[in-house]
Amino acid sequence: MLKLYSFGPGANSLKPLLTLYEKGLRFEHKQLNPAQFEHHSDWFKAINPRGQVPALDDEGKIVTESTVICEYLEDEYPTEAPLRPETSFDRAQMRVWTKWVDEYFCWCVSTVGWHRYVGNMVKALTDTEFEEMVAKVPVPEQQVKWRRAREGFPKDVLDEEMRKIGVSVRKLDDHLADNEWLAGGMFSLADICNFAIANGMDMGFAELVNESSTPHLLRWLRQINERPATKDMFAHVPREKFGPARED
Amino acid sequence: MLKLYSFGPGANSLKPLLTLYEKGLRFEHKQLNPAQFEHHSDWFKAINPRGQVPALDDEGKIVTESTVICEYLEDEYPTEAPLRPETSFDRAQMRVWTKWVDEYFCWCVSTVGWHRYVGNMVKALTDTEFEEMVAKVPVPEQQVKWRRAREGFPKDVLDEEMRKIGVSVRKLDDHLADNEWLAGGMFSLADICNFAIANGMDMGFAELVNESSTPHLLRWLRQINERPATKDMFAHVPREKFGPARED
Repeated sequence: MLKLYSFGPGANSLKPLLTLYEKGLRFEHKQLNPAQFEHHSDWFKAINPRGQVPALDDEGKIVTESTVICEYLEDEYPTEAPLRPETSFDRAQMRVWTKWVDEYFCWCVSTVGWHRYVGNMVKALTDTEFEEMVAKVPVPEQQVKWRRAREGFPKDVLDEEMRKIGVSVRKLDDHLADNEWLAGGMFSLADICNFAIANGMDMGFAELVNESSTPHLLRWLRQINERPATKDMFAHVPREKFGPARED
Repeated sequence: MLKLYSFGPGANSLKPLLTLYEKGLRFEHKQLNPAQFEHHSDWFKAINPRGQVPALDDEGKIVTESTVICEYLEDEYPTEAPLRPETSFDRAQMRVWTKWVDEYFCWCVSTVGWHRYVGNMVKALTDTEFEEMVAKVPVPEQQVKWRRAREGFPKDVLDEEMRKIGVSVRKLDDHLADNEWLAGGMFSLADICNFAIANGMDMGFAELVNESSTPHLLRWLRQINERPATKDMFAHVPREKFGPARED
């Protein structure tokens, strides 16, 4: 049986989760606790040596990288309602959107998220406990990110990321003003992968994502939240909890 | 007829070029001159508003992003010798490799390349000429890169990128020690996309890529260079020229 390792229905973990729900595939779900750094534990690094969720175990074959897992599920388990457009051109547009999430949109949102929530999560640790945790992180760039999150990211970095978030939501809203969905005139992996990052931004980034600035983005978020698969996912899988936000 | 806009057989432009040659597809080639900033000209930005090559025109439909173009060509023009593995799992491994090039390997090599070559290309310009050129660059992050290239990138940035290049060639060599090709036991888009960045590193990064440190990577580079399609491509398409390297 399929087994998904994830943090729950948010960010990159949401991508394969929602894909599984949309496709109606049965799977076992192992939800890791980020607050306990479970993804850096030896048992999980034996599954994904990079210590990152999501990861999919398909009868012993491990597939990593959230976007790759989504296309894998489409390739391996084709269903009557496909999540990938039919024509090569529309499929290419879908991949431009999923690539853009992974290379641009997810990073700016993630940095601000780490500043606000993840940093707070490790503030209570002593220096020794923190260093022990960081030593278990297998990716050097992620070690740097943990240190910066604990200190708080510098203001110029946060300002630049906020600029990029502004660019991102503008780009989405402009496209969604003329298109019901992101690619190929149908709900696809492009929508799932962007929804994974954009969902909830009307709360966390209300100054950028609101009825007057981004009505089309909000319409699209509502439409996805109203899908039976999305409702089902949120009803069954608890959200990741980081605790309260940093106040500065 | 297919029409490819590219800088020639190096870096991201090589990916669709070699894919077209491997597939034996006829296409028109429009080679842009980076030294004249032709990719920032209005006529090209009408084709790709991001002002980036490669871009593919398929009877008026424009596909951008080098890796996406490669999968598009596989989707739209399937040939007897496929460049994508058959099984979903192997295909996922291929995509993990092409994603890694785009998100990690190409960036560290690119920054050092910009420092060494691209910066030099704009040194001869007056400040006014340079600012006029930068004003035509549509992507803000690329504007920043042009400025840094002209000044020379800071030493700490270059040191970190060299560390990442070291990690990258080690990763490739380790994998290629046990595998003839990167994914699925066959020559695939994973090899093409990594070759695009790694080819020539035995010259430009001889301290990292050489017979004693990375024999398997060199074996793989030679094997790809000996393929008829690769020879054909290099015989027919002139390489991009940046002029002499910066000496510091």
